[in-house]
Amino acid sequence: MALTRNEIKFIKSLQEKKVRETERLFVVEGVKLVEELLLQDKMEVEAIYATPEFVPTGSKSLNLVTISESDLERISGLVNPNRVLALVKFPKPKSVDWQLEKNVLVLDEIKDPGNLGTILRTADWFGINTVLASENCVDLYNPKVIQASMGAVYRINYIQDSLQKMLPDLKKSGFKLVGAAMQGKDLYTYSYPEKLALVMGSESHGISEKTNSLLDETLTIPKFGETESLNVGVAAAIILSHFRQVKGI
Amino acid sequence: MALTRNEIKFIKSLQEKKVRETERLFVVEGVKLVEELLLQDKMEVEAIYATPEFVPTGSKSLNLVTISESDLERISGLVNPNRVLALVKFPKPKSVDWQLEKNVLVLDEIKDPGNLGTILRTADWFGINTVLASENCVDLYNPKVIQASMGAVYRINYIQDSLQKMLPDLKKSGFKLVGAAMQGKDLYTYSYPEKLALVMGSESHGISEKTNSLLDETLTIPKFGETESLNVGVAAAIILSHFRQVKGI
Repeated sequence: MALTRNEIKFIKSLQEKKVRETERLFVVEGVKLVEELLLQDKMEVEAIYATPEFVPTGSKSLNLVTISESDLERISGLVNPNRVLALVKFPKPKSVDWQLEKNVLVLDEIKDPGNLGTILRTADWFGINTVLASENCVDLYNPKVIQASMGAVYRINYIQDSLQKMLPDLKKSGFKLVGAAMQGKDLYTYSYPEKLALVMGSESHGISEKTNSLLDETLTIPKFGETESLNVGVAAAIILSHFRQVKGI
Repeated sequence: MALTRNEIKFIKSLQEKKVRETERLFVVEGVKLVEELLLQDKMEVEAIYATPEFVPTGSKSLNLVTISESDLERISGLVNPNRVLALVKFPKPKSVDWQLEKNVLVLDEIKDPGNLGTILRTADWFGINTVLASENCVDLYNPKVIQASMGAVYRINYIQDSLQKMLPDLKKSGFKLVGAAMQGKDLYTYSYPEKLALVMGSESHGISEKTNSLLDETLTIPKFGETESLNVGVAAAIILSHFRQVKGI
């Protein structure tokens, strides 16, 4: 079926944050990510646009629209479109019981979508369920975040709001706020608190002053060479891995 | 000074690997990376093209060409050009004495330039001097590698050649070849060999069969959640950090 100009325009407009938030819809692209989407049950799929080569996985009844390769190119945000594009509804926000949670990741001004996606993928690997993000972080449904997260967006509870509003609640529930910083306690000998909220700041400016004033402690990855800093996704991964090594699940 | 059409064409053509290899020149862009370039002494700078706002660091005599913002846009490979572009000569290959080296990183089919740059930055942080790369890895002087490496390219000895040729030499010098894999020994309880060559493969296909047959052991990062795999730069960082934690420098 050929898509109308209005349909193409609508789907393409979901590359923009403003439109996504009005429509409460986001885009997932490519065979691997859409296959995983169809096998999970947390996200509600609005429609699937696919070339005839795409074979849907799972057993859900789908609003599947078969389209041509050239129509896929018209609606895709990828440099190399890959057979299928799904429109997915924003999930309902989940409420978190801070008394039950034990490990939380807090992101302060993470603006690069590739970094955010990688951080979510890593958090998911290490069994972190909840990620709090400052309002000036990139939004979860940015297509580059979705692609880099490799499906972690289907599972992670990403709560984007004012950290000044959310972090005091965490503290009241017994969390220690521990920030990654250039000058802090040595990661390798650090004793983790029972309830850890790990705070990561931006690569260029570190943790913002407002958030910094709420921290209980800072933590540093020991440096053995000359490079000035680590990529923020890399730094988060090193700390989360070390945390699991010491504390288990 | 206004650049001629031929100068613009020449500089722009260095975005391509073939031209870089013929000319033995590569491009470094942006204030931060060029400042660091001018403060080190391993790389020889052929020329600097900068807008009047750029103030060179260091004390070297420079072939500094002041250009307009619009000429910078014409020669730049960045979406947002940042004041300065340097042409740098390929450094002479350094010979490595495998008897003296203790830790080496080996990359097999790492094709994404952002991943390679991040890996070099992380290797530099953890004091790794030498990185061996298979012929089908992305080349070191790809502009995206340079940008993501954040200056690590100035320090790391990156040797790109056939792994089938290089790895047997490593083994003869007492290195154990340890590959990161989905099924291997648990990273957190692993006893590292005295001389470690850590082998990382591609994210989608893992370590190639030819390289795999040369490995002494494989190593796995324990998984606590649901995501299928980790980004290759993240995985390398986690293992290198754990290695330093156990063995020190």
